[in-house]
Parts: sequence; structure tokens; C-alpha cells
Amino acid sequence: MLHTPNHDYRILDAQGAAGYLAAHPALAAHLGGTPEDWTCRDVADGNLNSVFLIDGPQGGLCVKQALPYVRVFGEGWPMDINRARFEHAYASRVAPHVGTLAPRIHHFDETQFITVMEKLEPHIILRSALLAGQRLPRAATDVAEYVARTAFHTSNLAVPFERKLTDTGVFSGNIALQRITVDLVFTDPYIENPRNRALSPHLNLWAASLREDSALKAAVARHRLSYLCKAQSLLHGDLHTGSVMATLDDTRIIDGEFALVGPTGFDTGTFIAHYVVAWFARSAQGGSPQDTASFRAALADDILTFWNVFATRFIHIWQEWDVENDGTPRSHFTSDTDRQALDAFRRSHVDDILVDTVAFMGVEIIRRIIGFAQLADFHMISDEAVRAKAMAGALSFARSVLLHLERFGDIRALLDALTEHDGAHPDDPQTTRSV
Amino acid sequence: MLHTPNHDYRILDAQGAAGYLAAHPALAAHLGGTPEDWTCRDVADGNLNSVFLIDGPQGGLCVKQALPYVRVFGEGWPMDINRARFEHAYASRVAPHVGTLAPRIHHFDETQFITVMEKLEPHIILRSALLAGQRLPRAATDVAEYVARTAFHTSNLAVPFERKLTDTGVFSGNIALQRITVDLVFTDPYIENPRNRALSPHLNLWAASLREDSALKAAVARHRLSYLCKAQSLLHGDLHTGSVMATLDDTRIIDGEFALVGPTGFDTGTFIAHYVVAWFARSAQGGSPQDTASFRAALADDILTFWNVFATRFIHIWQEWDVENDGTPRSHFTSDTDRQALDAFRRSHVDDILVDTVAFMGVEIIRRIIGFAQLADFHMISDEAVRAKAMAGALSFARSVLLHLERFGDIRALLDALTEHDGAHPDDPQTTRSV
Repeated sequence: MLHTPNHDYRILDAQGAAGYLAAHPALAAHLGGTPEDWTCRDVADGNLNSVFLIDGPQGGLCVKQALPYVRVFGEGWPMDINRARFEHAYASRVAPHVGTLAPRIHHFDETQFITVMEKLEPHIILRSALLAGQRLPRAATDVAEYVARTAFHTSNLAVPFERKLTDTGVFSGNIALQRITVDLVFTDPYIENPRNRALSPHLNLWAASLREDSALKAAVARHRLSYLCKAQSLLHGDLHTGSVMATLDDTRIIDGEFALVGPTGFDTGTFIAHYVVAWFARSAQGGSPQDTASFRAALADDILTFWNVFATRFIHIWQEWDVENDGTPRSHFTSDTDRQALDAFRRSHVDDILVDTVAFMGVEIIRRIIGFAQLADFHMISDEAVRAKAMAGALSFARSVLLHLERFGDIRALLDALTEHDGAHPDDPQTTRSV
Repeated sequence: MLHTPNHDYRILDAQGAAGYLAAHPALAAHLGGTPEDWTCRDVADGNLNSVFLIDGPQGGLCVKQALPYVRVFGEGWPMDINRARFEHAYASRVAPHVGTLAPRIHHFDETQFITVMEKLEPHIILRSALLAGQRLPRAATDVAEYVARTAFHTSNLAVPFERKLTDTGVFSGNIALQRITVDLVFTDPYIENPRNRALSPHLNLWAASLREDSALKAAVARHRLSYLCKAQSLLHGDLHTGSVMATLDDTRIIDGEFALVGPTGFDTGTFIAHYVVAWFARSAQGGSPQDTASFRAALADDILTFWNVFATRFIHIWQEWDVENDGTPRSHFTSDTDRQALDAFRRSHVDDILVDTVAFMGVEIIRRIIGFAQLADFHMISDEAVRAKAMAGALSFARSVLLHLERFGDIRALLDALTEHDGAHPDDPQTTRSV
């Protein structure tokens, strides 16, 4: 009993994807030749959608189709297919600002919920690169640039509020994927829920400890409310290292179907969370101590770079912006002292985003270990006791920052805390509780 | 060249209002008799709409019609007539929660933008009562109850986020009246704008001082962003003492056409601002020093009562609420320590609303003295020098609280500050600058 939105909707397979392109001459022309010359691969590796790559003599295209259910779970978990419309609305809204930091969209089909976009080659998923021990040094800088631009240009700092309310109205309809975030990120990890997949029995004590941590749940409530109420800018909404495709010198952000108007720090915090996860997982992924230390230092450096580039670029774009907006009207800031006060306000605004960033980072780390959506970073560690130890360190770190946000007004303090929690014990969640 | 939304729309006069009711049997039945038995009065005293009271042998009705322009200004200031739809949407949304604290709506006409509601009798506008030196002691308590209920029940603390996003979507369309707030409340008073009506020449130095106060403009920017971004609950949006009709034992809140999803403290702060204005104006409105002191003490007491009732009732309603919501899921707070942590979170949430309240109060006071929409509280003072002195006290108070919000974590500190600024000098805006 799938909730398909129309009778014409058909789920594509690889051959169907090629047939779809063949039926659209402008798209077929990208590939060149005839359909007999094309190859088509099913490459879906996210949780929700079908993705096919079609190559022809002259080029390639990526065909993404939303399914009316959660792909990795099956038809028993229906999922509003209109998420494809919101993904397209998000991509269209940010396109004027992000340049080549997102793939080019060639075609969107509102009936089949199909997006045809530029095939990214030889890009690989950023998470895969990090798992393979490959550093893509531009990625952190480029994603920071992307978030700075999208966050600024969709905020009241850039546009009249009417423009922002248009976005608010559009994305207030994207409830199915916000429900996933509210449940899987902010709620399930702190209760007993059959969807949770914490490593058992190794992390049973940790999971119980988090469920019983009243102060932590109050902190999570504060930030869940912030996610739901703090309408600062249009967010990607799922900006982890699996939503980034990169090469050594090119970075593209994909998969904006979780888009919402929300707190800017949700995007920055989610992204940093996955570098932190990579950091904690690294020690257990094999490799010499020197290699581990060196890669961890690189990851910490990427986190520092990501935040510093974001903060610097956000402020710089703001300083350069000379278009009327309702956040800081130009007419209010004309004298030298006005401009000094405005610059102080800019710094304090970015400081506030850092507090949110650290908090949302903590929430994201916890849900990726206790909750439903697990990460390859840890699951590639075959020895479960070793995996549990790496996970315990990340949990200890995440809980600590959530309970002591006031200590992390400087991103360097966050990096220092990584090593403090590296030795957290899987069997004793209390050891680092008050760190 | 009026922007009327349809060809059938006709502006009513008093006779037309009676004719309108006569054409609707269910409404005519409220009045009883025949139209020849009815009396109709034009009682519009707000800035925007036509309002008529029609009395018949058996009862009375109030007919309110939105005009496609600002009534007090004329056709040269067009104003989106759809505001009537948002007023109706607001009244409908809060009706299940406010009981008899709002008038009963009998009829809404989407073509004529007419609302027919209960005629309130012998209620008078709260501002008029205060101007006449009449205290309506229930008003502060009842308005606090109204805001506590509407703020709680339209927030993520009460409902699943999908319900709140429905409100967000609906009221994201109410841009015309939000534009008034953004411009007249948050922007115009701090620039030279022909709409401003600061008392000249008496307050010229004050107006210039506010325009040149960089720190103040940065503080206003922070709270303008909060108004635009902090989507806590559905707000009335214009909750001054002219939006309240009361008797000694009954209170009704009217005129919700500025409704938006925003920071709860905007409603509480606006309301308190008008008690503060009444306090500063009182000394110059005549009457013996004893009468002035006594009435001022009563006003200060009303402010204290208003805030304390709001805070107490908001927390109490929250504590009693046993319906699933996404702000503080019931499943997260089940143990005794959970409930203690949740209670601490509730208090901190209300503390945050107080900070917003004080800030929005300050912004509202300033705009009512410097900006376009002036208040009878001051304008009934015929001696302009005396009026200017009362206004200077209120400006000094408002600027000081905006620059020093950290001092007003307790509502009593705010009341203490009233007298500190009572003697501010109209000719020297610097005297109290750092108070």
C-alpha cells in the first residue's frame, strides 16, 4: 500500500533510467550516441533513494529517483516522495550562491520525482575517502565556503524578510524528513526504541547511562527546540561527509532533501560531527600508531580549518554585502562608530553560531552511535570490543560538550577535548561523566 | 488605484453595515426586531480598519471591515486587505485555548473582509481606562493568562512540530503587517524618516542621540533578528493596551491582525511597554502628586502582576500538559531526576522569555515616542515642554534597558529603573546615557 502521489509514477531500474534519458532528447544529447552505446549502473548508497549513473560516448549523467519508502528498510517504512520536490527547491534556491560547489541540475520531473544532474567524476564520497585514509584537503574549506554562502544569502542579513518568509512557507511543508530528524536525531537515542542499533552488549551500559542522564536530556530538549524554532537560514539539513563528493581540488555538496529553515549551526555542527567520528574511529581501524596520529592530526586540522573558514567567510560576505536587508539595515550603520558596533555584532553573531554548532555536533555524534543510522567509520571495525571502545570515546566526548557548552567558545578547546575522551571505557560510562 | 482583491468588495458605511447584517438572517436574529429598530455607530479608533457597532432590541454586534489602505492615513497608503484573513486565522487558532478572553466571532466574510463578532459591553479600551485614571485590576492578570495560554499551546512545547509548521506556513503569508512592524517599530525611529513624528523641537536632541547611538542600533538589530527568526509561538503581534477591552471583571483581547509565529517575549514586552508609557505620562497628565504616586504604584504593581502571572501560568500549564509534543517528549522525562531537570529547564525557558520581553518593551517604547504611531497617553498632555519631559524619561528608560539587558533578569529590577529615569532631561539626552 505505497503512497504514490500519482498513477503515472513508475519506479525505475537501471534499464528504465537509461530509457528515461533516451526519451528526453536534451538529456540524451549529453550522453551522445544511442542508448545501445550507454552503460548504466545502480549506485544507490544512501538510505532513501535510487541513484543511477549513465555513461555515453560524450558524457555521463546521474539519475536520482525518490521512492515512496525508505530504500534501505523497504516498503514497510513509507516515506513521503515529495521530498524530491524539496530537494529540488533547495538546490534551486542556493544555486545562485554556490557556483560549482553543487552539481548542475539538468532536469526535474515532478511526476516521476526524478532529478537528472551532472555526473560527478572522478569524485568520490568524502566519507569513503576518509575511511580509506585519503585526505581531501580542499573539502573542509569548500564545505565551509558553501555553508557560509548558503547561510548568509538565505538569512535576514542578506534579504528583505519577505523573501525569507517565502522560503519559510515553502520548506514548512517538508515535514516528513524533519520528522526523521526530530525522531532519529533528537529523540530515539535517549529512550528504548526498537529502531536503535547501539552495539550490544558492549554499549548497553552506555546506552542506559544516556537514557538516564536527566541533565543531558534537558540539554537535548534545548537544542531540539532550537532546531525547531531558530529560523536563521535555509539549511541543507543533512550535511554529513556522505553528502559531499570531492576530488583533490573540487568539492560538491549533494542531497539537500532534508532542507529546512533553521539554525545555521545545525549544518556546521553536523559536518564537524562526522570528522569527530572519523577521528575516534581511526585508532581502531588498523594502521600504525604513527599513521593514526598523523591522520588524526589532519582531521583535527580540517575541523579547525572548516570552522575558521566558515566564520571568516561568513563575516567577510556580510561585510561586503551592500544590498538592503532587514537584519542590519544599511541606513542604521553609516558612521565609523556604527560600523565598529556592527562588526562587533557580526562577531557575536558568529560566536552564537559556534555554540549551536558544538551542541548540534554532540547530538549528531550520539545518534550515529546509539540510534538507527549507523556509520561505516565504526562498522568497518570488525572486532566489536575494539569498535565499542572507539564508540565510547566519541560518546563521552559528545555528552561532555553538550553538558558544558560554556567551555567551547573557542574551536581549539573542542579539539583539545578530543584526546581527553579517547580512553573512555565502554563498560563504565560514569568514568568521564564529569570531564 | 486601490488594490481591491475582487470586484464584489464594497466599503461599508454605518448604514451599509446594518444592511449587511439584515442580509444575513442568523446575524440579524442576534439583534432582534427589524433593521428600522437598529442603531449603528461608526466607532473606528484604530489606525487601519472600519468598525461599526449595531444595536437591536435583543442584542448588539460589532462589524469590522478591513480597508485596502491605512484608514488614518488615507488611500495614499495602501495596505493589503488580506490582513483580515490572518486576523480571522489567528482568532480561530487561539479560540480553543482562550475561552472568554477573546470576543466570540460570529461570521467571517472572505469576499468583503468583514468580521462580525460579539459586541463587548460595557467594556472600554484598556488604554482609555488608564488615561482616565481608572484602574482595571483584572486586566493585567487576564492578559497574562491569555498570553501564557496562546504562547504555550501554539509552541513546540504543546504540539507535534507538524502542527506548528502548519501555523508557520499560514502566517508566513502575513507579510504586509510584519512589514509595518519591521519598519515602524524596528527601523524608522533610528533614521531620519518623514513618517517619524517625534515632538519637535523639544525632542530633536533626543531623536538625534538615538540615531547616533551605534550600540543601541546594534542591540535593536539583535532583537529585530529575534523578531524575524525566533519562531517560538503564534503571537498576537500588536498586544498594546488599545488591543484590550475590559470591565472591572472581564477582559477581552482583540485585533490579532499582526499575528505571526515569533518570539513569545514580543507579546509580553509590547504589553508592558504601554504600562511603562502610562507610568511616565502620568506625572504630566495633571492630578495631585499623591494621586500620581498612587496611580504609578498601581501601574508598577500591574506590571509585576502581569509578568508573575504569565511566568507562573506558563510553567503551570506546561507542568500539567500530558499530551505528546516534540519540544520536551514525555518519554524523555519519566524519573524524579528527569522531572527536576525538566522543571529547571522550564524556569530557564521563562527566564529567556523575560530577557526578550524587556528588550522588545524597550524597542516598543522608543518607537511610540519617536516614530509614526504616537500614543494618547502623551498627546493628551497639552503643554509640549511638559510632554517632552515625560517622553524623555521614557526614552531614557528604554534606551538604558536595551543597552543593559543583563541587569533585568528580575522584573523588580525593571520597576526600580522606572524612577531612576523619571527626571531625564529633554534637552540633554546624554545625562542618563550610562545609567
